[in-house]
Amino acid sequence: MEPHFDRVTIIGVGLLGASLGLALKCRGLATSIYGAGHRQSSLDTALRMGAVDRVFLNAVEAVEGVDLVVLATPAALVIPKLDEIRGACPPQAILTDVASTKQAICAHAREIWPAPRRFVGSHPMAGSEKFGAEHGRANLYEGSVCLVETAPDLDAAARDAVVSLWRAVGATVVDIAPAVHDAALARTSHIPHVIASALAMLAARHGEVRPFVGPGFRDMTRIAASRPEIWRDICITNREAMLEGLSELNARLEAFAEAIKKADAATLESLFQEGHDARRATVDE
Amino acid sequence: MEPHFDRVTIIGVGLLGASLGLALKCRGLATSIYGAGHRQSSLDTALRMGAVDRVFLNAVEAVEGVDLVVLATPAALVIPKLDEIRGACPPQAILTDVASTKQAICAHAREIWPAPRRFVGSHPMAGSEKFGAEHGRANLYEGSVCLVETAPDLDAAARDAVVSLWRAVGATVVDIAPAVHDAALARTSHIPHVIASALAMLAARHGEVRPFVGPGFRDMTRIAASRPEIWRDICITNREAMLEGLSELNARLEAFAEAIKKADAATLESLFQEGHDARRATVDE
Repeated sequence: MEPHFDRVTIIGVGLLGASLGLALKCRGLATSIYGAGHRQSSLDTALRMGAVDRVFLNAVEAVEGVDLVVLATPAALVIPKLDEIRGACPPQAILTDVASTKQAICAHAREIWPAPRRFVGSHPMAGSEKFGAEHGRANLYEGSVCLVETAPDLDAAARDAVVSLWRAVGATVVDIAPAVHDAALARTSHIPHVIASALAMLAARHGEVRPFVGPGFRDMTRIAASRPEIWRDICITNREAMLEGLSELNARLEAFAEAIKKADAATLESLFQEGHDARRATVDE
Repeated sequence: MEPHFDRVTIIGVGLLGASLGLALKCRGLATSIYGAGHRQSSLDTALRMGAVDRVFLNAVEAVEGVDLVVLATPAALVIPKLDEIRGACPPQAILTDVASTKQAICAHAREIWPAPRRFVGSHPMAGSEKFGAEHGRANLYEGSVCLVETAPDLDAAARDAVVSLWRAVGATVVDIAPAVHDAALARTSHIPHVIASALAMLAARHGEVRPFVGPGFRDMTRIAASRPEIWRDICITNREAMLEGLSELNARLEAFAEAIKKADAATLESLFQEGHDARRATVDE
């Protein structure tokens, strides 16, 4: 059964926020959608596209009488925004977010609201290197995976509502504890963004490399074109898991370098074989 | 004007060798094509596909009376194979290869043949994670870039013939000195393969990561599925450039780790911005 919300407020109407608004509209999942943000031009774009019905520069005003709040701001702004709107949200309001890191945000929500908690952390793994409301589309979440927080202090009905929200816009929901989320995403997403960036620099500072760029390099550096501010925030909000992962990666690269230095064919083949098998084990072709 | 060769011998009839045979056949660029290799089953496949007209387990026999030899063996076998066939090749024969590293191979050719040298190193940047003659196709080289050796000791007519060969099968030819080639490819291809492998391992050894795998991870680990033996060989034959590049990459990753450790937002944003700009500078979208 599809959910329906009378009043939804989306805070942050960039790619993800505007797309959610469009998805809700197109599927008739909400009666009225308010958009809040700090840039009038973005708000106007979201309004013009029909992603939202009314816009506010003041998030506190925008959440009065709301049923569902979706925070779709940059990850580093979620916690301050939760503090800002906490007092103005109706007690029965359900809240969620879309940030790529979960531990700090969910822990903060646990601090500022009593159990049973009605803020439920989400991470829809959708989107691209594109940004801004103007790139929003109603089908952005279709076929994607949305990770939704599990925790003992969550209100079960609020959680169900959040799960049904994401399913209703086309995502498959996977339950995840925030600590597990951050550790895994460090390895499958956050560190890869660091690597892509570093690889792009490695090539660019060498001189004229364009003739030597093949599909491998394109694939390996595509996400280096992502927005620096977003990845700065993710690194900072997922510090521990990233440092741990980077340290392990460094050890692995050292092993490769040692084997190359010694021209140790057997070890090199073995390292590449493990990576080959690891790829097969982690990605369905 | 298109080239035409009476007798071509392709040594090593895997993906690249068989595809070249098919390309030559389909475009009528050779009268007869011999295939040589060490595995009867691969030779039979190439024969059955029409990539070659006759097959040999003995490369020396296969090059008697030949006009053009293309060595399409794994990179580490090119030098031994050159030594093996040197005496049997007619003096006017033109030779080339397809290996991903060039310095060692071209230097060896310079040692075993007097100037003007009729072995001209090539590196067609085509192919995929697939391997074997059965995946060969006549259009593999279309739209690809083929890097062709420049050197003062090369026979000009032999070089022209090799360039026209690659153009005739659909590649764009770029001239390259072997040392420059190996240094650039270390950064745009060889090191990325090491990284992809290491990233796949980083994720796989963490536990169940499949739910967290998005397009970024897929892109970043695709080439980890490449054949270990091929990349083992490339690492060994391009040792110096790879060690230099890996050392630079390590310094870059250290800078990221330091900034994350200190939660230094400004430095992190700056690092990501440089990577962003480097990607834009090296890859045309």
